Amino acid sequence: MTHKIAILGASGYTGAELVRLIATHPTMEIVALSADRKAGGMQMSDVYPHLRHLDLPTLVKMDQIDFDGVDLCFAALPPHGLSQALVRDLPKTVKVVDLGADFRLRDPAEYEKWYGAAHVATELQKEAVYGLTEFYRDEIRDARLVAGTGCNAATVQFALRPLIAKGGVIDLDTIICDLKNGISGAGRSLKENMLFAERSTDVLGYAQGGKHRHLAEFDQEFSLIAGRDVRIVFTPPHLVPVNRGGILADCYVQGDAQAIHAALVEQYQDEPFVEVLPPLGQLPGMGHVTGSNICQLGVVGDRVPGGRALVVSALDNLCKGSSGQAMQNANLMLGEDETTGLMLAPPVFP
Amino acid sequence: MTHKIAILGASGYTGAELVRLIATHPTMEIVALSADRKAGGMQMSDVYPHLRHLDLPTLVKMDQIDFDGVDLCFAALPPHGLSQALVRDLPKTVKVVDLGADFRLRDPAEYEKWYGAAHVATELQKEAVYGLTEFYRDEIRDARLVAGTGCNAATVQFALRPLIAKGGVIDLDTIICDLKNGISGAGRSLKENMLFAERSTDVLGYAQGGKHRHLAEFDQEFSLIAGRDVRIVFTPPHLVPVNRGGILADCYVQGDAQAIHAALVEQYQDEPFVEVLPPLGQLPGMGHVTGSNICQLGVVGDRVPGGRALVVSALDNLCKGSSGQAMQNANLMLGEDETTGLMLAPPVFP
Amino acid sequence: MTHKIAILGASGYTGAELVRLIATHPTMEIVALSADRKAGGMQMSDVYPHLRHLDLPTLVKMDQIDFDGVDLCFAALPPHGLSQALVRDLPKTVKVVDLGADFRLRDPAEYEKWYGAAHVATELQKEAVYGLTEFYRDEIRDARLVAGTGCNAATVQFALRPLIAKGGVIDLDTIICDLKNGISGAGRSLKENMLFAERSTDVLGYAQGGKHRHLAEFDQEFSLIAGRDVRIVFTPPHLVPVNRGGILADCYVQGDAQAIHAALVEQYQDEPFVEVLPPLGQLPGMGHVTGSNICQLGVVGDRVPGGRALVVSALDNLCKGSSGQAMQNANLMLGEDETTGLMLAPPVFP
Amino acid sequence: MTHKIAILGASGYTGAELVRLIATHPTMEIVALSADRKAGGMQMSDVYPHLRHLDLPTLVKMDQIDFDGVDLCFAALPPHGLSQALVRDLPKTVKVVDLGADFRLRDPAEYEKWYGAAHVATELQKEAVYGLTEFYRDEIRDARLVAGTGCNAATVQFALRPLIAKGGVIDLDTIICDLKNGISGAGRSLKENMLFAERSTDVLGYAQGGKHRHLAEFDQEFSLIAGRDVRIVFTPPHLVPVNRGGILADCYVQGDAQAIHAALVEQYQDEPFVEVLPPLGQLPGMGHVTGSNICQLGVVGDRVPGGRALVVSALDNLCKGSSGQAMQNANLMLGEDETTGLMLAPPVFP
Repeated sequence: MTHKIAILGASGYTGAELVRLIATHPTMEIVALSADRKAGGMQMSDVYPHLRHLDLPTLVKMDQIDFDGVDLCFAALPPHGLSQALVRDLPKTVKVVDLGADFRLRDPAEYEKWYGAAHVATELQKEAVYGLTEFYRDEIRDARLVAGTGCNAATVQFALRPLIAKGGVIDLDTIICDLKNGISGAGRSLKENMLFAERSTDVLGYAQGGKHRHLAEFDQEFSLIAGRDVRIVFTPPHLVPVNRGGILADCYVQGDAQAIHAALVEQYQDEPFVEVLPPLGQLPGMGHVTGSNICQLGVVGDRVPGGRALVVSALDNLCKGSSGQAMQNANLMLGEDETTGLMLAPPVFP
Repeated sequence: MTHKIAILGASGYTGAELVRLIATHPTMEIVALSADRKAGGMQMSDVYPHLRHLDLPTLVKMDQIDFDGVDLCFAALPPHGLSQALVRDLPKTVKVVDLGADFRLRDPAEYEKWYGAAHVATELQKEAVYGLTEFYRDEIRDARLVAGTGCNAATVQFALRPLIAKGGVIDLDTIICDLKNGISGAGRSLKENMLFAERSTDVLGYAQGGKHRHLAEFDQEFSLIAGRDVRIVFTPPHLVPVNRGGILADCYVQGDAQAIHAALVEQYQDEPFVEVLPPLGQLPGMGHVTGSNICQLGVVGDRVPGGRALVVSALDNLCKGSSGQAMQNANLMLGEDETTGLMLAPPVFP
Repeated sequence: MTHKIAILGASGYTGAELVRLIATHPTMEIVALSADRKAGGMQMSDVYPHLRHLDLPTLVKMDQIDFDGVDLCFAALPPHGLSQALVRDLPKTVKVVDLGADFRLRDPAEYEKWYGAAHVATELQKEAVYGLTEFYRDEIRDARLVAGTGCNAATVQFALRPLIAKGGVIDLDTIICDLKNGISGAGRSLKENMLFAERSTDVLGYAQGGKHRHLAEFDQEFSLIAGRDVRIVFTPPHLVPVNRGGILADCYVQGDAQAIHAALVEQYQDEPFVEVLPPLGQLPGMGHVTGSNICQLGVVGDRVPGGRALVVSALDNLCKGSSGQAMQNANLMLGEDETTGLMLAPPVFP
Repeated sequence: MTHKIAILGASGYTGAELVRLIATHPTMEIVALSADRKAGGMQMSDVYPHLRHLDLPTLVKMDQIDFDGVDLCFAALPPHGLSQALVRDLPKTVKVVDLGADFRLRDPAEYEKWYGAAHVATELQKEAVYGLTEFYRDEIRDARLVAGTGCNAATVQFALRPLIAKGGVIDLDTIICDLKNGISGAGRSLKENMLFAERSTDVLGYAQGGKHRHLAEFDQEFSLIAGRDVRIVFTPPHLVPVNRGGILADCYVQGDAQAIHAALVEQYQDEPFVEVLPPLGQLPGMGHVTGSNICQLGVVGDRVPGGRALVVSALDNLCKGSSGQAMQNANLMLGEDETTGLMLAPPVFP
């Protein structure tokens, strides 16, 4: 049986990544691609020449899609806002995986606080399941609407959730996460600071000091697990001139490295897409996960006795951090095996 | 039926590319990997962490391989010299695809002239088939030893062979080819000028003035096709700071652009891996072929009446320029369909 | 005596380069900086943090500048069109170096043909001196308006002018120039294809087939020198992912390499900013001239007897190709020594 | 009066940077350049073509230098070990600035612990002054031997020394420093992991878990200031694919952001080369200090009340982190103004 798939926002980077992943998926077929800025007869190969050998529908505007023939729709729209009304107005027979931020937060007040506008589909906000597959698998299987997580939010949660959940493994009040991110994670929108000339010789953090919106997800999820308020220090994207949007998260925690490593191994030993590097002390690099749907975790202790440990989490944010995660969730929602189409061939290297 | 494959020189970049390609090949199985410098218990994942999720044999020294169980052997050894004695001494039951330069030239005198040493296996030199699949398909099918072409040599030949062969399409005495090459094409050997700090902000040609060894292949092949001596001007690799070893070849020829385009379309219309961009005037970029086994060709005429035309040829030199070509040839030698395992998923982009 | 300088379009890359150069110029003082998009109280350090330690005027809109106190004005405005009316309306006491394309062509018909609109200041077009300093020195000294050359146009002219002028050194009908350009040469305007993610792993030509506007300058200048029509083949910018806008021009010509080298040495032996690499066969790389006001030239012959030679010309297009050239011209117009402030310290490397 | 300068290890990156800086220094003259691997008649322009326009001595082996005519010698030798015997055997009339690690630690036991070999010139170890100019100015003025600091060590000390020294501003037991470093900081030695192909698409930390040798400097200096043992968590170089070896240090501390900012402003208000960004909340990027001798500092508080603050320190490690610092120290040792030759022109951008 073939699942009919529509991708909204296909001309962005996460849209192109979805096309890449579906190209080798045995039971998904793309029946519609929307790209409002690029519609009007353009082909994906005009927008992405490297996809030229695929047989894909012509790009159309969103309202030109007939959703009756669609089983599942990926909404890969700009950061936030657009998806709310759109998803609300879709036929209820269409399953939706939203890659944006619109349905990640359960509390309308929190949404308004972080995103600066009231949510217009609060009913759906309640219905939506938070899309961190490894921790919401059962709910996702039955969901009609799944909200993809923030890419940074996913990277850090893979490192910290098992440690918080277990209790007593790490101190909850002194967690510090410092992230390094490839450029394509910033998407394809036209901003002066995303020009090649501006980014290729610089490294720069932004939204430091507790202002990054992915903090809302950490607050929501970590507090839920811990049963108390948890507020981590999170220094978000240091943009580094790597093309593919890899994320490398250094998570500094207070706790015993051995116990931390054991807790992660225990949590992930049967997970196909989260890999804990076996020897304590080995840490992943950004390039090790490029193009794959795998999150790699490593742990090292510090020399200071009773001191801190470092948990490093690495993933490819266009894949495991967004489109790959979306595919994992779509597989579950469509009754497929979660890994279908995601045991990817090794990426190109160098 | 599964073909047992050995890769000699697996720790180099073409070796890693072969592993990438075989990972999704339905009927090839890697039974041995050699890497003299990295042997002694090392795994491919120690050398290439991004291959960690594959189940691969431990790296050994070449002489530790039992070739009795091997159907076909890829020799991805350093530039030239090493393969001659090695291939000579292999059991005759093992088919060989050599990715180096040792068997590309049929004439021992030419080999000695360009490579500065006498050939030590001149019998094999005669036996070897030149591995440009699209033009030596039948010979390759029956060959025991196939000599992979130079990567630059392949890129330019795809553009020029049909034009020379047809006769009257272009002037044979005024051909000029100017190439731009990604860095990984230079391989993994330790040279000061291959350090990141040296290459990342520079563009530099080398071996200009008719000194590059791939000229020997052009001389041999083009003269053979034309039935007379042809000597092109070839400005070899301008190293540009792109990681993956893409090649973009600008070939300036005297002739009518329309006729040139028609000759290329005619030649390649049924070829799965050579694509002539349909509208005259559209030209490929290096990024359009990254990670694929496809060579893209485009043609544009110049404004000067009766003037020159530009044929641009682009391919990924670690794939179509070496390891992908080697796989194409191996498929033929093993009785498989030529495209098996090579209709690759789109590469990661960005 | 201090010369009062205004820079129009200071927030672009050529504007920032002018600021860099004036920072160590002993007799120039910046009295006004305009940047229409960034005006309204912004400082240069807001736009270019690396200029933070300089004492510079606040950015204003162009019409807020009092030109009475200005000796010379650099117009570093977007590609073309804007400067015509602007320069026409300036007080006649202000000398102008225009870095754009508006006054490069002497013939209004040619301007309209290449730029698609009638020139609105044809009087000034006649008055303007073509700013290739090494060849128009005397006219520039007395000029009120100097038109900076195209950056590609300068690079190629340094290689070819002496060869055309001398007569008999090269064939005039078979000249082919193939250029490789760093990204910042494309300026700071917001285009999707200038995003880091689009450019960092690609090499791409554009405007091939005789469509690039710098051809108009070649046609004008080379025909003038030769006393007959000369139409070169010019493959303009292959964009390569190097940040600083270096230009490397491979010029393929029919002629004797030794004679070509001699003609270049003869022409440039007393020039402070054009350097012919002494041994025949040595060729410059892009990185060798980064940040300097020097154009380096090298010559190599081809192996084919009586065949072609390759002249390679390299310069930094933000410096020698535009802002450095503008400074050279300004020095002459203000009665300074041409080299003042341009014998720059070595650039940062790596 | 002109000071005669020798540079030992001139062919490395810090050596080339010294040449760049001395090129515009009014009272220093380079009289000898050594480069053992590149000696034998080579010129600096053979090794560094961008220095071609300077008039420099031929490269020689170290023992070919006549130190009688030398006032001051910069030892820019490989990481450690070589300088000890060499400096010991120099005529006592020659002042020495050592850019390596050999004389940074005062305690021979600590040296042996971190560097794995006994020190062979322990007398000199005692005599050497730690070269962090802003904090050892008076001692440096009178020193014969100054030991340049580690580049990472300098970056972090600028952020933390004033906070530790003041007392009560930050908690001393919870300091965490996470660094991002450009590639050229790793020097010019041939290592596989420094190849362009290996580094250009990866971000990777190394020596995590308290193993990096610069920790020895932190332990020595911070404990001295605090009057008690201080052991910071230091995650050393995350190598990012930026060419110039900029360093961006994120220092997470427990303390009030306002008080921290005030302490830094107070400490550095009269320093020419350390700049505290004025508004609380503004943070430097790596590109803002490229090519300059300036360290920029910024402070931001976190959202968590009573929580952590982030101090970001950025410098160019080939300049302020090593060769620029060395020049500052040499100026003092030679009786020059500390800033002579170091108020550099703005660097090239983009």
